[in-house]
Amino acid sequence: MASESDGAARVAWIRSRMPLLARARVDFAESRPFDGLKLGMSLHIEPKTAVLLEVLAAGGAEVVATGNHGSTQDDIVAFLRDSGMTVFGRRDDSLEQHERNVRAVVDSTPDLLLDNGADLAAGVLAAGTAGTVTGGTEETTSGGLRLRGELAGAIPFPTIVINDSPLKAIGENRHGVGQSVVESVMRITNLMIPGRRFVVAGYGWCGRGIAQYLRAFGGRVAVAEIDELKAFEAALDGYRVAPLTELAEWGEFFITATGHPGVLGPDVLELLPDGAVLANAGHFPWEIDTDALRAMAHTVTEVDAAIDRFDLPDGRGIVLLAGGRMVNLAGREPKGNSLEAMDLGFLLQTLSLERVATRADTLSPGPQAVPDDIEREIARRFVASMGASR
Amino acid sequence: MASESDGAARVAWIRSRMPLLARARVDFAESRPFDGLKLGMSLHIEPKTAVLLEVLAAGGAEVVATGNHGSTQDDIVAFLRDSGMTVFGRRDDSLEQHERNVRAVVDSTPDLLLDNGADLAAGVLAAGTAGTVTGGTEETTSGGLRLRGELAGAIPFPTIVINDSPLKAIGENRHGVGQSVVESVMRITNLMIPGRRFVVAGYGWCGRGIAQYLRAFGGRVAVAEIDELKAFEAALDGYRVAPLTELAEWGEFFITATGHPGVLGPDVLELLPDGAVLANAGHFPWEIDTDALRAMAHTVTEVDAAIDRFDLPDGRGIVLLAGGRMVNLAGREPKGNSLEAMDLGFLLQTLSLERVATRADTLSPGPQAVPDDIEREIARRFVASMGASR
Amino acid sequence: MASESDGAARVAWIRSRMPLLARARVDFAESRPFDGLKLGMSLHIEPKTAVLLEVLAAGGAEVVATGNHGSTQDDIVAFLRDSGMTVFGRRDDSLEQHERNVRAVVDSTPDLLLDNGADLAAGVLAAGTAGTVTGGTEETTSGGLRLRGELAGAIPFPTIVINDSPLKAIGENRHGVGQSVVESVMRITNLMIPGRRFVVAGYGWCGRGIAQYLRAFGGRVAVAEIDELKAFEAALDGYRVAPLTELAEWGEFFITATGHPGVLGPDVLELLPDGAVLANAGHFPWEIDTDALRAMAHTVTEVDAAIDRFDLPDGRGIVLLAGGRMVNLAGREPKGNSLEAMDLGFLLQTLSLERVATRADTLSPGPQAVPDDIEREIARRFVASMGASR
Amino acid sequence: MASESDGAARVAWIRSRMPLLARARVDFAESRPFDGLKLGMSLHIEPKTAVLLEVLAAGGAEVVATGNHGSTQDDIVAFLRDSGMTVFGRRDDSLEQHERNVRAVVDSTPDLLLDNGADLAAGVLAAGTAGTVTGGTEETTSGGLRLRGELAGAIPFPTIVINDSPLKAIGENRHGVGQSVVESVMRITNLMIPGRRFVVAGYGWCGRGIAQYLRAFGGRVAVAEIDELKAFEAALDGYRVAPLTELAEWGEFFITATGHPGVLGPDVLELLPDGAVLANAGHFPWEIDTDALRAMAHTVTEVDAAIDRFDLPDGRGIVLLAGGRMVNLAGREPKGNSLEAMDLGFLLQTLSLERVATRADTLSPGPQAVPDDIEREIARRFVASMGASR
Repeated sequence: MASESDGAARVAWIRSRMPLLARARVDFAESRPFDGLKLGMSLHIEPKTAVLLEVLAAGGAEVVATGNHGSTQDDIVAFLRDSGMTVFGRRDDSLEQHERNVRAVVDSTPDLLLDNGADLAAGVLAAGTAGTVTGGTEETTSGGLRLRGELAGAIPFPTIVINDSPLKAIGENRHGVGQSVVESVMRITNLMIPGRRFVVAGYGWCGRGIAQYLRAFGGRVAVAEIDELKAFEAALDGYRVAPLTELAEWGEFFITATGHPGVLGPDVLELLPDGAVLANAGHFPWEIDTDALRAMAHTVTEVDAAIDRFDLPDGRGIVLLAGGRMVNLAGREPKGNSLEAMDLGFLLQTLSLERVATRADTLSPGPQAVPDDIEREIARRFVASMGASR
Repeated sequence: MASESDGAARVAWIRSRMPLLARARVDFAESRPFDGLKLGMSLHIEPKTAVLLEVLAAGGAEVVATGNHGSTQDDIVAFLRDSGMTVFGRRDDSLEQHERNVRAVVDSTPDLLLDNGADLAAGVLAAGTAGTVTGGTEETTSGGLRLRGELAGAIPFPTIVINDSPLKAIGENRHGVGQSVVESVMRITNLMIPGRRFVVAGYGWCGRGIAQYLRAFGGRVAVAEIDELKAFEAALDGYRVAPLTELAEWGEFFITATGHPGVLGPDVLELLPDGAVLANAGHFPWEIDTDALRAMAHTVTEVDAAIDRFDLPDGRGIVLLAGGRMVNLAGREPKGNSLEAMDLGFLLQTLSLERVATRADTLSPGPQAVPDDIEREIARRFVASMGASR
Repeated sequence: MASESDGAARVAWIRSRMPLLARARVDFAESRPFDGLKLGMSLHIEPKTAVLLEVLAAGGAEVVATGNHGSTQDDIVAFLRDSGMTVFGRRDDSLEQHERNVRAVVDSTPDLLLDNGADLAAGVLAAGTAGTVTGGTEETTSGGLRLRGELAGAIPFPTIVINDSPLKAIGENRHGVGQSVVESVMRITNLMIPGRRFVVAGYGWCGRGIAQYLRAFGGRVAVAEIDELKAFEAALDGYRVAPLTELAEWGEFFITATGHPGVLGPDVLELLPDGAVLANAGHFPWEIDTDALRAMAHTVTEVDAAIDRFDLPDGRGIVLLAGGRMVNLAGREPKGNSLEAMDLGFLLQTLSLERVATRADTLSPGPQAVPDDIEREIARRFVASMGASR
Repeated sequence: MASESDGAARVAWIRSRMPLLARARVDFAESRPFDGLKLGMSLHIEPKTAVLLEVLAAGGAEVVATGNHGSTQDDIVAFLRDSGMTVFGRRDDSLEQHERNVRAVVDSTPDLLLDNGADLAAGVLAAGTAGTVTGGTEETTSGGLRLRGELAGAIPFPTIVINDSPLKAIGENRHGVGQSVVESVMRITNLMIPGRRFVVAGYGWCGRGIAQYLRAFGGRVAVAEIDELKAFEAALDGYRVAPLTELAEWGEFFITATGHPGVLGPDVLELLPDGAVLANAGHFPWEIDTDALRAMAHTVTEVDAAIDRFDLPDGRGIVLLAGGRMVNLAGREPKGNSLEAMDLGFLLQTLSLERVATRADTLSPGPQAVPDDIEREIARRFVASMGASR
């Protein structure tokens, strides 16, 4: 049996399960939309990203890239350099070194930006080189908020915010996050789902998915939601709907997906039963008030990977998963979103960058949603790639 | 055992299962928002409507009402007259008589209109009395379209279009219609659902509900949808997704919910297998091309209530339910939407009319959505009335 | 449009949706297993039974039949007589006349019995003609109990008890009853299912189906079950599981499917909330203690077809469906089990009678289960008739 | 934060989530059913087993134990020795050393056997010491087959076969395996479930669970089953049902759970589409014919942990998970059955051993099912421990 353990082999497997990017690569090799353009990227460097960058390079882009702090995979960096790209950074970089890496990408004066957290956008503004940028994309919601907040009005080029996409709301938030949260709770805790009592805080796209998949797995699910219309939807979807303080004594698992800080605060924590398991699915690690929990506990014990038990003076032990960070990225060997979900998200990136490169005149300056025709084209290709008609 | 068979008894039972209207009635008896105002109504006259009118009358309204052509229930008319209201019309009225009834309501110069199909709105415009109207509500989507189409700009008073409500999309279209269609197909045909192959045309709110409940009942469901984003949603919801012509030979039941005419046209009809069952859930009876079907058949036989079989020269027999009209209002003893769904919809009417009567200054002239604060207030009351927190 | 309103037309439609019987009819027309044999039948006379009898007659049987008391459909009697069968009875028969009808079938000295409730078996014993009977089938569980109880050892010929079949447990009890109960509750009450709180008493095949389909329709379901192993199954299936007295205040709908008398007795009735709806799905009308309920009430009002409200001195109104009889056979226009479920059950009858007629030597005297090879043959045909492989 | 990384800490966490064993430990500390008895064990040595052994020791048993070949966890061995038990074996043992370990347990002349695969039973027979054994339990189905096959009639003492239990069929096979297979396929492959096409071979308890949970997660599921009655059940449960050769071209994932060898043999393998993913959930690694697959391939590549791709001369790549061994025990960090499922299974062990130790007179010699009263007692305790009544 041949064995492939390096970056090239990992990328080969993943590339084989991303058919949308594969087709774009073939198309771009012919149309060469990025010929003569330099693309600056700031995004996690892992095998899926490598497949994305291959496609952009096939379209003629000269790639200059860096990763996020602490998540860069060194064998993938090696693979990308072997492919002729310029890549800054390694896993062990200090924060200072990481910032130098971002600046190095900015200093390469890219024509196109593939950004996350608006790091490159802020960089070119600071460097005074924003005028030489044709346009770009922004991967994250938090980057979108920054572009519309502190940077509002300052960006002279179009930036397509990928996470605004309705395809991502359904494909990634509802189904992707919904399933990976259920899978992760099982994988990390080894506890049973059917017949267990779950409280899901928040009934947005992620919360809808989490509640749906927990119930599908036999869980008994209650929803806490302060928005009246979403609470109405949850009640008709057949869930018990009540405030967290009413559900605190009933639940055995509590999962937050609200986007708001302090959702599981002292008022709820003090009511939880012994053995309650807490997990967060929201982007920021602030939904569970871990400071309050720590202050209540006399002892905190790491009982297994990504599992801490907080022993309280009243005898209760409260179990916190992943320290309150995103539970579906925690524990040993988390894999994150499915390959298909990333194939979808990266095709949004790919076709948006093509639009910026070839028809920037049809876009206005500043942050904006993915053009509707791109959404529809990708929806069509995704359904076809699923063989949904069979 | 006491027996009640007249209008009063039927209304009593239904009133007892409409808790939102019951509470509004108590509130209005105190606040009297309609004191001194005349309310003209044009809406189906059946027991649920009677409960609505009682609430408005309790709020001080002088009610002048008529029904729709052919659906007026005479014992309810009697009951309403006993309650002191002015009601025009009876079940056997000719179309001419019905039109006279509508005109009689218009001629009473009402201050408020509770309209459907924009009949009263068009009436006051034609009569030149629109200027004396404070405002009103419109129950139906088709009335809303008329107000925004042929009557656009002509209406000088605010009209709140109830069917635009997101509460109705979820409560009535997704869940109400979804379930009543499944119930009606079973009730009318006496056929089995589990393991049967269903094709649902259209994945809007109604189609989503129909597909969901058919699958929940063990049906194998495929979806046909031309909108790319909805097709994407259906595919990730786990349905087979393909064009109707591809599904025609596979399906056993075909249910339309698209809003478009001729969806099941000759190209699909000629491919259907022997015994295929066709039903429509859309508002208009045009989604199944019954003229084409009739033209193809050498014999049409009514085999049971609301079931016709079309025998074709090639030996196939195609089964049409309800003549292509709304299947969930067909057959013997259809009951229409659930009492709770009507309680919801009529509270939207009630609070919207109160807003028109008491704070018309906060509204603009012409058709408009239900004010957001009313939506939220009703969502809150509905969830509470369900006891969802228990 | 041609209209068919008589027995022949109704039978034609139903025959067209019973493909298993259709195939048996073709087979029997060739093999003639009943040539020269007289078949005595005692079973509900309605269109589905007519299709069964046609098959037996096609196999050469001389049919002598009567119905059950009060359910005979006169147009079907006429249709059967036109087909050359001897049929006793009409809808309006007195109980005495009905008993004379059964005796007339017995007195015709049939070779084969198609029995229900063991009426014909008891009849031939009483008449001293049991020795001339080759064998027969028994449709019902209660007939099977009688054959194994008061008649144990007395029957000198083989009787195959159809209701023992595992195919019927799954096809009819789990799926057929499960769905028709949900459909009937909706049809009779016009109340909403999603988000409502249901208590299902009993987690046998019927209870499993009822709970499954109520939850599938968005209901919140709790199960009461005294058998520990079934309670365990229900809990892992994700239901709340508790004694009825604990669930009494929580539930809104209570549905019994236990097979035991007095399940909803005074101890539970006194705890029910105002407006609670009670229905029974068990064969006998004894699971809800209607005598106790009547004794508690100061007034009983029939508020709609198959809906009675019992007003209690403490102000509560309790709603009883179908007087505590089988709810899925109640109300206006109940259709009973699906045509496919009857096709299945009647093919069990048909092939069992063929076995009795042609290979009685392979059977022992007295009541017995359907031979395993017949079960498997029918399972195979049913799956094929569903087109399950498509 | 205190950190516990050794055996004691891992056992502490797991012990805290096994409430049934915790209660048995308290009971046994009082009743001491095993006082003066030596217990010989042959079972995987991992943290859950340690919790079981603690309970038996608390009941007075002198424990002499060994593990299975290759799965012994050394830190747990150390923990058990610290607790005063005699344990033979370590992870790195050769097969010869493992056999010596089993013999060492046999040579200790235990009074009670806690066996798997009938290794100890065969051992005491070979050693001629079977006459000194009071009785025992057997964990596995394959051990039960051996006791009823090659060893039939030879065992002079009662052996309770745990895996025959209906509680295990539902709790472990349907729900436990069903869920862990879905979780494992996601964890190992990082592929999407919703909308994907799955073929499940076998509709026994495991297959029912796998099909149910795949569909619950949005998968489109077909079932292949040669037993007619199970195929009927699957069809009414709403699955496509067809032979594997018909489904081979349609499926994307193929999961076996039949108990039979060669289910995915050359006839199916040659029809699979490019990229098909194969996994086995059955106990033995023989359901997928990996020899045939290997013979067809020109190259086999390990593309990730527990993922091999077989490249065939016709250009197809077939993906095999876990080398055809149980997929839910494969990949990085598999955790096996849930803690609750093991709590259930080990309480069956515990109370069965108590019955053997204290009332062997009520049992017959040889293999037998768990006594019904123990099943019911455990069902009751399990439902109570779930808080199912809340």
